Amino acid sequence: RVNSDRLWDSIMEMAKIGPGIAGGNNRQTLTDSDKQGRELFKSWCDEAGLTMGVDQMGTMFMTRPGTDPDALPVYVGSHLDTQPTGGKYDGVLGVLSGLEVVRSLNDLGIKTKHPIVVTNWTNEEGARFAPAMLASGVFAGIHTLDYAYARKDLDGATFGDELKRIGWVGDEKVGARKMHAYFEYHIEQGPILEAENKQIGVVTHCQGLWWLEFTLTGREAHTGSTPMNMRVNAGLAMARILEMVQTVAMESQPGAVGGVGQVKFSPNSRNVLPGTVVFTVDIRSPDQAKLDGMRARIEKEAPQICEALGVKCSVEAVGHFDPVTFDPMLVGRVRTAAEKLGYSHMNLISGAGHDACWAAKVAPATMVMCPCVGGLSHNEAEDISKEWAAAGADVLFHAVVETAGI
Amino acid sequence: RVNSDRLWDSIMEMAKIGPGIAGGNNRQTLTDSDKQGRELFKSWCDEAGLTMGVDQMGTMFMTRPGTDPDALPVYVGSHLDTQPTGGKYDGVLGVLSGLEVVRSLNDLGIKTKHPIVVTNWTNEEGARFAPAMLASGVFAGIHTLDYAYARKDLDGATFGDELKRIGWVGDEKVGARKMHAYFEYHIEQGPILEAENKQIGVVTHCQGLWWLEFTLTGREAHTGSTPMNMRVNAGLAMARILEMVQTVAMESQPGAVGGVGQVKFSPNSRNVLPGTVVFTVDIRSPDQAKLDGMRARIEKEAPQICEALGVKCSVEAVGHFDPVTFDPMLVGRVRTAAEKLGYSHMNLISGAGHDACWAAKVAPATMVMCPCVGGLSHNEAEDISKEWAAAGADVLFHAVVETAGI
Ligand SMILES: NC(=O)NCCC(=O)O
Ligand SMILES: NC(=O)NCCC(=O)O
Repeated sequence: RVNSDRLWDSIMEMAKIGPGIAGGNNRQTLTDSDKQGRELFKSWCDEAGLTMGVDQMGTMFMTRPGTDPDALPVYVGSHLDTQPTGGKYDGVLGVLSGLEVVRSLNDLGIKTKHPIVVTNWTNEEGARFAPAMLASGVFAGIHTLDYAYARKDLDGATFGDELKRIGWVGDEKVGARKMHAYFEYHIEQGPILEAENKQIGVVTHCQGLWWLEFTLTGREAHTGSTPMNMRVNAGLAMARILEMVQTVAMESQPGAVGGVGQVKFSPNSRNVLPGTVVFTVDIRSPDQAKLDGMRARIEKEAPQICEALGVKCSVEAVGHFDPVTFDPMLVGRVRTAAEKLGYSHMNLISGAGHDACWAAKVAPATMVMCPCVGGLSHNEAEDISKEWAAAGADVLFHAVVETAGI
Repeated sequence: RVNSDRLWDSIMEMAKIGPGIAGGNNRQTLTDSDKQGRELFKSWCDEAGLTMGVDQMGTMFMTRPGTDPDALPVYVGSHLDTQPTGGKYDGVLGVLSGLEVVRSLNDLGIKTKHPIVVTNWTNEEGARFAPAMLASGVFAGIHTLDYAYARKDLDGATFGDELKRIGWVGDEKVGARKMHAYFEYHIEQGPILEAENKQIGVVTHCQGLWWLEFTLTGREAHTGSTPMNMRVNAGLAMARILEMVQTVAMESQPGAVGGVGQVKFSPNSRNVLPGTVVFTVDIRSPDQAKLDGMRARIEKEAPQICEALGVKCSVEAVGHFDPVTFDPMLVGRVRTAAEKLGYSHMNLISGAGHDACWAAKVAPATMVMCPCVGGLSHNEAEDISKEWAAAGADVLFHAVVETAGI
């Protein structure tokens, strides 16, 4: 079993960097806090004897050598970036549990056949730069490096400039590495494990996603002196599209979600009907046909809603991944590890996207999950217990060592 | 008649300060641009021989003395601040036409019995600091000075600090001045005069307003891993309230409007259901009972909408004025002036709020309006012709001189 105190202390130490306003974290990607987080993680990896490689996306690959010079590495990773009002565990648990696997191997003096590479992917959250899982997406050949560098935050800063600014542009070509296997350990971010009273989620699939960014163009006009019948009201169109997305999601039950997290009115003045409203619809389902059907329906009905109001409607997909099926052999190893260790477990479909979803495109991959209180995540109040954290790390440890070979 | 070229040139000169991005202006109150605009206006007033008084709200009172030492001044004013994406004429036309009245009197060597005070009220727009017409509201005893100083913009800067920062805190107690009469000339900001092909709006009333700021508290949660039935979705509640406000406004036709110009999601991240949504509903009607009825219905139905979603709902009135009836004698003088000058005219109810609405609480007051293209205002594309501007300034000139006495 891993050293649960050491794992927990490291998580708490990392949480001091980029503190939030309500007990969580604001350590968004490529900010000064992200830079500090990377430095702390690197110092721990140095102590553990790992050597660092950094690719052109700033992803950190920390290698513990293997005994077989020809064996491809087993990767264990997640992300250290957070939402603007994120929790202490989302991503961090996975990266630091990867480190804990290595630390425990060091303690036990165990050498593995395959090298083990603890990985911190850049910009997993997609909060500052859409889409999410950006660096792993480039790694898997889904996006080009140019596309990634050109992503902009709400203030107009680009990913490329910000990566340079914090000094983490590496020299490795993105995706040049070959993986024997990829493991990612993460909090569930949903309510199922806690409700079913299980310690371990054996993640068999991940649901697919579309992020549809709508730009509605109305006519900027005075809220007081513009009669109702002369309005070209982009705000009202947005409201109707939100309600329509809710309807589409409810009619796609079970196994689908839909909602909106980001809305921007311009000029956003109390007495001005908005000239433009930009917002992103987030729809997901583990069922490919259902997911694409939801998208088609939303993209058909939204323009009709807008047309009835005279509002111009354009839509751009700013994030997407298809539903993922994880590697059955690795999934089996996670299940076997949980059984051997005596942890209660069940199969899970990941509701959130993860770097594992892109890694699965280029290598056998899977995930381990632990419960989180009330299923709450992307909230500073996100919470797990030390015991929950440790159980998943134990399972990760066993599955990784099984795969890396002794 | 006034000098229409000089009036137009002054408007175009002022428009160079705080240029917008699409031909209009961004000269929001208490910004560096506002300071520059004030300085330009003062330099013109100096040339015209006016003496300046400034009150604790930063309102500028530029006095042309009268011949009767006991006669109270006739005030002519409006505002030089703009919306973030405002037009060149909204407010500016009224202030600079007041100056043009004085310049024309100077040209003609005419002395009036009552002094004439050209006024630039601070923060009419309410775009940066709610409520609108803030300085005239303090002047009329509606708000306290402390209340006004404590108003905050979206970045948290206070009105009081910003007024000090630009160096325009005057020493006059606000509201100490007594007025013989108050005139304000403004573009209509609505479609009626143009549609009816009239040059002059004789403004008999102004519709009343409520700004209802809603704060909806949901549960910040992951858009992907939070099942539909576990969401406490403040964004969806906002959408339903927008639709309800539209319904209330449509069912209150004719003679009412309702809409939303400002919406803020927090944390405003694509994959986070908002923890809070703050937005302001703007409802107006010239009919007091209708206005208050709309408010009551919205404040009754919004909490019901929220309750059905488990969302917490609080509402604060951040702006309000009752419908105003302007002084019949002054209204008559505006009508007579238009007739004498041969300008086509009609009675109008102002759809927007104006400093004249608060001045009407403490003095006889009225307004003159000219058409604007397509009824468009609070939009950089706001447009009027030089001839339209001049006709209203002529009417203002005659009505003011008639009231100030020769
Ligand atoms: N795990 C996680 O929250 N990833 C962010 C991408 C997503 O929205 O699913
Ligand atoms: N005239 C004008 O646009 N005033 C701003 C206050 C309002 O919203 O009516």
